[in-house]
Amino acid sequence: MSAQSPTMMTEPTPGRRRSKPGSQTALRARNQQRLLEALLTGGPQTQAELSRTTGLSNATVSNIVREMSQAQLVNTEPTTSSGRRALSVRLNDTGAVAAGIDIGRRHVRVVLATLGYQILEEASISLPLGHTADEGMDAAGELFNRVLADAGVERHRVLGAGVGIPGPIDRRTGTVVRGAILPEWVGVNMREDLAARLRVPVFFDNDANLGALAQVTWGPHGGCENLIFVKVASGIGAGLVINGSLFYGHVGVTGEIGHATISDHGLVCRCGNRGCLETVASTSTMIDLLSRTAAEPVSTADIMRQAAAGDPATLRVVDDAGMAVGRAVAGIANTLNPEVIVVGGSLTGLGDTFLDPIRRGLLRHAVPLIGETTTVTMSSLGDRAEALGAASLVLAQAGAVL
Amino acid sequence: MSAQSPTMMTEPTPGRRRSKPGSQTALRARNQQRLLEALLTGGPQTQAELSRTTGLSNATVSNIVREMSQAQLVNTEPTTSSGRRALSVRLNDTGAVAAGIDIGRRHVRVVLATLGYQILEEASISLPLGHTADEGMDAAGELFNRVLADAGVERHRVLGAGVGIPGPIDRRTGTVVRGAILPEWVGVNMREDLAARLRVPVFFDNDANLGALAQVTWGPHGGCENLIFVKVASGIGAGLVINGSLFYGHVGVTGEIGHATISDHGLVCRCGNRGCLETVASTSTMIDLLSRTAAEPVSTADIMRQAAAGDPATLRVVDDAGMAVGRAVAGIANTLNPEVIVVGGSLTGLGDTFLDPIRRGLLRHAVPLIGETTTVTMSSLGDRAEALGAASLVLAQAGAVL
Repeated sequence: MSAQSPTMMTEPTPGRRRSKPGSQTALRARNQQRLLEALLTGGPQTQAELSRTTGLSNATVSNIVREMSQAQLVNTEPTTSSGRRALSVRLNDTGAVAAGIDIGRRHVRVVLATLGYQILEEASISLPLGHTADEGMDAAGELFNRVLADAGVERHRVLGAGVGIPGPIDRRTGTVVRGAILPEWVGVNMREDLAARLRVPVFFDNDANLGALAQVTWGPHGGCENLIFVKVASGIGAGLVINGSLFYGHVGVTGEIGHATISDHGLVCRCGNRGCLETVASTSTMIDLLSRTAAEPVSTADIMRQAAAGDPATLRVVDDAGMAVGRAVAGIANTLNPEVIVVGGSLTGLGDTFLDPIRRGLLRHAVPLIGETTTVTMSSLGDRAEALGAASLVLAQAGAVL
Repeated sequence: MSAQSPTMMTEPTPGRRRSKPGSQTALRARNQQRLLEALLTGGPQTQAELSRTTGLSNATVSNIVREMSQAQLVNTEPTTSSGRRALSVRLNDTGAVAAGIDIGRRHVRVVLATLGYQILEEASISLPLGHTADEGMDAAGELFNRVLADAGVERHRVLGAGVGIPGPIDRRTGTVVRGAILPEWVGVNMREDLAARLRVPVFFDNDANLGALAQVTWGPHGGCENLIFVKVASGIGAGLVINGSLFYGHVGVTGEIGHATISDHGLVCRCGNRGCLETVASTSTMIDLLSRTAAEPVSTADIMRQAAAGDPATLRVVDDAGMAVGRAVAGIANTLNPEVIVVGGSLTGLGDTFLDPIRRGLLRHAVPLIGETTTVTMSSLGDRAEALGAASLVLAQAGAVL
């Protein structure tokens, strides 16, 4: 690695000078490091939010921000928070970047982000359905190279690549487990195979987890302690932010809302059970249902178009799917009582047409107090949520390492 | 309060001496305080567990334990942990006690515990079904007084009383919310009304939460990070230990597994929904089902007796209820991927007769990897779990305050 990368953390800034432990200078350096980590992990935020996440007083945060701003480590800009005027703090661009890669059943998307959570470059390509793991990883590697070249970013400036996989990952072994949307990927050791192609440090996670992470880093839910992100696409999964952090449970397989039993004697699911939410409300199921009476196979884009045009069968299928998602979401809400449930995936463009039945399903099946106090909203990050969350994964790791 | 109570924390022990901040003595005092809090919050544990919970090295823990043992603050006794020989550390009795009170639909139970998690005294009485909140709190107050007298414990030695309520509590207001097993208690402000009767500081919580807390403090699951306690009684609820602590979510209403939809067009539930787990698998439902063909009304004790005697109808009702509980438990396991699910409540005496169908329901409805890696077990604390957990609540608070 060149001496320039990643530059920011090794420059002799006031807070990085060697200092006697226990001294005032050492204390200031420690506090500055905490702010730095909070900004890397949580993205740009107001001084009040920084005070909450670091546990430092408002006055201390304000002093450190002034120092860091004078040293050109951060920049500040006026914003409003809960209707009040506030100062948003963002890390300055240092040339170091994080890559976020989202590998789906039919696409790969790559984003490059600065330490200040600004997008430098972004691209996506389609993948053939049923591609092998090798083909998928090759495509990700090639697109990553192209994006680096387009952005004029040298590889040694990349802190790492976060990679989202549409399937549960066994964190004990680092492999995709049975039940993944991509059966071709089951058992593949992502860590080694991807690192070899990308030639940067690789961090990976389930795509729904990354969608959840994106909501509290890139999205509008920065201060949210307990948030559920539900991704509805060819498969259905949820990512859980609990007490402000992604939650992984015992072996790493959490938020498997796609396999909540909805219909006792429903269709057989790829997990081996029957009548799972995925067999009722995934886009694959909607496509199957609507293709039956159509002249030619229906696509997700057709669903969007037909719903907008008011086609009764499409609206009915979307409504039924939404109610089923809402019912399963009620199960999670009854368990975890989150502040916010964010719906993402490939149908976010449907807006209230899809959100209304989800809300109805939630209210019908949740304990009243929970139904009334849970906010349900559509992801404002569209189909970029997973790639953005993947970049956040790298930035959060950078905070711990640097 | 007399100078003697609570004595332990104000004695001039080595770790409590005033010392220059930053000095070796100050560091030792801080480490000793951490150990003290870990033992109050988590109960007696091995040195290895203390090292994990405090983040201190094995050598440091071993040194501090030796010092505290010499100062007669703790005592140690040989035990085995994961098959190895280990030293279990327990806080010595100082005369300070914590009370745990469990108020149920038909009973009140009171326990008195030392700082070392030893039971000094314990008693329970029956309450008439449909008692008012005032009657319930009066009974709790009287039993508390009786237990104090029987144990010869003066009130000023009581650090506080933890109180378990069989219903969800809105932590924003400190009141029991709609949906409680005890409709007479809805809207009552527990904090004030109980403190006036008990005349000690009061901490209260949902009974299933306290059952969960008891498993990781009094029970055999001390090191467990993610544990679900499912209480099956007249109502059904769950308590969640997440990342080692009780989890309360947004407004405090978590683990509402009793209202998971099991049967789409089932019986109407007190929550306003239909076919909730409680309408299928609570002891009230089992009693209704079995009383229909019995000469006289069946009790929970009859269910235990008839199941043990092999009565086919009873066994069928228990099996069906267990499968339904397992199905709902699968929903929580699919969401949270816990290490352990502990079943408690009034049917624990049924053992495998009830546990086997719960396991079957879990395996049938959970994602395979989750079903395979989740331990399901019966609570070894019987119907004392909630009162014991209530005492733990006080001891944990004592650690933060003292």
